[in-house]
Amino acid sequence: MSTGDDRLVQSVDPDHPANLIPSLCAKFWTLGWVTGTGGGASIRDDEHVYIAPSGVQKELMKPSDLYVLSLPQTLARHGESGDSDGPIRPSSRVYLRSPARFKPSQCTPLFLSAFTRRGARCCIHTHSAHAVLVTLILEQQGASEFRINNIEQIKGFARGYPHAEVGNLGYHDTLRIPVIENTAHEEDLTEFLEEAMERYPDAYAVLVRRHGVYVWGNSVEQAKGQCESLDYLFQIAVEMKKLGIPWESDIKPTLPRKSIKGQ
Amino acid sequence: MSTGDDRLVQSVDPDHPANLIPSLCAKFWTLGWVTGTGGGASIRDDEHVYIAPSGVQKELMKPSDLYVLSLPQTLARHGESGDSDGPIRPSSRVYLRSPARFKPSQCTPLFLSAFTRRGARCCIHTHSAHAVLVTLILEQQGASEFRINNIEQIKGFARGYPHAEVGNLGYHDTLRIPVIENTAHEEDLTEFLEEAMERYPDAYAVLVRRHGVYVWGNSVEQAKGQCESLDYLFQIAVEMKKLGIPWESDIKPTLPRKSIKGQ
Amino acid sequence: MSTGDDRLVQSVDPDHPANLIPSLCAKFWTLGWVTGTGGGASIRDDEHVYIAPSGVQKELMKPSDLYVLSLPQTLARHGESGDSDGPIRPSSRVYLRSPARFKPSQCTPLFLSAFTRRGARCCIHTHSAHAVLVTLILEQQGASEFRINNIEQIKGFARGYPHAEVGNLGYHDTLRIPVIENTAHEEDLTEFLEEAMERYPDAYAVLVRRHGVYVWGNSVEQAKGQCESLDYLFQIAVEMKKLGIPWESDIKPTLPRKSIKGQ
Amino acid sequence: MSTGDDRLVQSVDPDHPANLIPSLCAKFWTLGWVTGTGGGASIRDDEHVYIAPSGVQKELMKPSDLYVLSLPQTLARHGESGDSDGPIRPSSRVYLRSPARFKPSQCTPLFLSAFTRRGARCCIHTHSAHAVLVTLILEQQGASEFRINNIEQIKGFARGYPHAEVGNLGYHDTLRIPVIENTAHEEDLTEFLEEAMERYPDAYAVLVRRHGVYVWGNSVEQAKGQCESLDYLFQIAVEMKKLGIPWESDIKPTLPRKSIKGQ
Repeated sequence: MSTGDDRLVQSVDPDHPANLIPSLCAKFWTLGWVTGTGGGASIRDDEHVYIAPSGVQKELMKPSDLYVLSLPQTLARHGESGDSDGPIRPSSRVYLRSPARFKPSQCTPLFLSAFTRRGARCCIHTHSAHAVLVTLILEQQGASEFRINNIEQIKGFARGYPHAEVGNLGYHDTLRIPVIENTAHEEDLTEFLEEAMERYPDAYAVLVRRHGVYVWGNSVEQAKGQCESLDYLFQIAVEMKKLGIPWESDIKPTLPRKSIKGQ
Repeated sequence: MSTGDDRLVQSVDPDHPANLIPSLCAKFWTLGWVTGTGGGASIRDDEHVYIAPSGVQKELMKPSDLYVLSLPQTLARHGESGDSDGPIRPSSRVYLRSPARFKPSQCTPLFLSAFTRRGARCCIHTHSAHAVLVTLILEQQGASEFRINNIEQIKGFARGYPHAEVGNLGYHDTLRIPVIENTAHEEDLTEFLEEAMERYPDAYAVLVRRHGVYVWGNSVEQAKGQCESLDYLFQIAVEMKKLGIPWESDIKPTLPRKSIKGQ
Repeated sequence: MSTGDDRLVQSVDPDHPANLIPSLCAKFWTLGWVTGTGGGASIRDDEHVYIAPSGVQKELMKPSDLYVLSLPQTLARHGESGDSDGPIRPSSRVYLRSPARFKPSQCTPLFLSAFTRRGARCCIHTHSAHAVLVTLILEQQGASEFRINNIEQIKGFARGYPHAEVGNLGYHDTLRIPVIENTAHEEDLTEFLEEAMERYPDAYAVLVRRHGVYVWGNSVEQAKGQCESLDYLFQIAVEMKKLGIPWESDIKPTLPRKSIKGQ
Repeated sequence: MSTGDDRLVQSVDPDHPANLIPSLCAKFWTLGWVTGTGGGASIRDDEHVYIAPSGVQKELMKPSDLYVLSLPQTLARHGESGDSDGPIRPSSRVYLRSPARFKPSQCTPLFLSAFTRRGARCCIHTHSAHAVLVTLILEQQGASEFRINNIEQIKGFARGYPHAEVGNLGYHDTLRIPVIENTAHEEDLTEFLEEAMERYPDAYAVLVRRHGVYVWGNSVEQAKGQCESLDYLFQIAVEMKKLGIPWESDIKPTLPRKSIKGQ
């Protein structure tokens, strides 16, 4: 039997977080992002945080499988914990609703970082093979940053947290995604994720070496769109590597004819 | 709230453009052509042009998300603009129906070029990874034209605009698709697209470097069929490159035995 | 308007050829076998031959799009044509039912060869990229035969026409598929296909260089199963080539322990 | 007509083994695991063993296509056979229900080994191309063991039969999957499979050279999750090989900052 208020995950609205997380995860499963119960997704709806549990078959998840956490109560308890500048500890989390079986996802503190440090509304974590391969290629090069420019899909990314008002990246801009090293326990990634967020205030995503990627957004649509665009770029990057084509290039803007004529 | 006449996008006919664009885009999403809200599609129905908006999740699009533009009114206003030999400017566009949220697609002037310069009925724009990789391989070679011959699927292409009456390409014909350089702003591609259309009067498609491809047709079926055939050829071309097999070959026609015997 | 007897393509039985061809072709489309209206399928039901038309979107085909041909009447007319040892000419074909739009498939005489020369019940033609790539790799080697052994899936093939009673190939057997050169006109392939059938009396499939593959079977299930197995082997063969692993190997049978002990 | 008690395969519960095997196999078909009637799946429900038949189209299987075997009666008869330390012979199998057409799967004795030697509840056999390619790469290296470490998805595996209580593998652990050589007849694999089970008491899977993989679990969910995770790792391993990245690496654990500070 579940604990807490089941009505929090009962809605006839397909866009309610409790319905959206299962439909998103089923879609992600077909894309190979959440294979073998890996990966996950979380949506914040002002005060409530909806999270897929650990170990669930993502393509078969039901609304009743979800956890619901109170963000204000969790933050209050976190503030009282005497460790309020670090990641939110499990003991600070206040669950308003827990499913009968399953355990909380180990991704929980990482999702909470996206919500509290970036004001995100949705955070997606994938184990996409493309993401993992990109971190392996970078490892060969001793690099901890994925950089790519001059690919149209780069426009699919917002310019980042403090600059949200200035729109998306441009075609000639360089997309930079930090790579953090994987830890034995997923929760231990949290402080490294938060550190990367500080070093890359523009980033909407963090790669985890030999593990996958965390992507967030100011809305579910933005998080999903950025996650799709990023996976597409990772896929192309792996193929570019096989074909001997560098990820960064020095391409001069093509001016429209009128600009050339000075019109 | 939407503006204009909503009845323009309300039909029970699954082949009505307002229903066809969403069903096509959902299919294209599964093919990886319109990932992360990239790409798009437009259908012309004599006087009306139906266009998918910017930034929509293509696999979830609804008829009510579409723009409808009046082609004769747009052309009339364009003619009065004093710049009538160039691409149609946004200020000339006459929308009969606009969705509540969303902005017009940046692909709009490119779709209009296919409709006005080629008399096309449908134009599809994909960000297919295969298309992008082909433009990258060609860039390595300093080339601005994709050429392939002696692959059966080449027969899937019409012989081009001025020769529509002479049917499709043959097996031994060389398919030539021009590549134009990408611009920072998608609208600025328009004049380069039109220029490529002039240089390649036979072409039903234009590749955009590091971006994707525009494909059109005299019907929805033809545009879609040519887009599928082209993506298939791009996919094979990338694999051929990995295997060291050239895209063009000098193969002599195999004559049927009867021809050999002179019968 | 269609001509002939529409009842030939109207049945509530999902296993009726008129329903089976559309459902098979929709499935094949998702596998990338009949992209861009390429490829096709035909089923023989004793006296009737059901054939997908030319130029149809394979994933959207309907029973009413099908041609139905009378095999005995076609053969009788062919016998009277004075050219009865060669492929069946279009003028000999007797259609009992033709769809309103569409033209007969250029694959028609090739399907008929499988039915008349091999007694097949179903013939599938794909443009699978894997098949095309295999023919290109063989071309590099100057070869006109695909050979692979010691892969379990080889057991998915029957031992061939004259030996149907002796079951399927074994793990250590070598699967041999002839490759014929492509012709400018698909009908002209017929005599080369028939010639290959004579040279390879065991084969249930013929590859066509730079084009695709024809696969047949004594039942719809057998033709489909062999086509799937073959495509799987082509896919593995392309990857083996990339990894530098030869398609044929000299592996000694592993005897079960009991055999070793002489039990 | 079927023989035995048809009620054994009739249930309205979607989680009943008779319904679960067809829905799992349809899903596996879309993943390319059971192409061309290859591969299979079996579920044990205490005393009953449900098995997909040989030669069935896996994506179209129905509950009525299944065999049901009595495990206690089969074991009793096996005990009386005088060969009770070896694999269970076909003559010892007691079927409670057999479908009208089809023959028993050649995988039957291998599934029974997982149930009787490991207490598994579900066993899946795939012909996944990724699995076959991994065995081919290992063969080039003269190796009979797949080893990979430092990939997050490794956590998707239980620590193995005798250690089930100690949970799953960790990120830094090395996943080891034995490879056995293929035999001409699938049943003859059984003793080699059982031998590998003895040598690898921790393993939940055995690769079969040039054939595929057997994966089992203490529940359907665990078997399926491990099979998905393994296929994902095989896919990444093949790509790593192409990119020149070794499967095993010597990575030092990344300690959380707090641990570094001694907190």
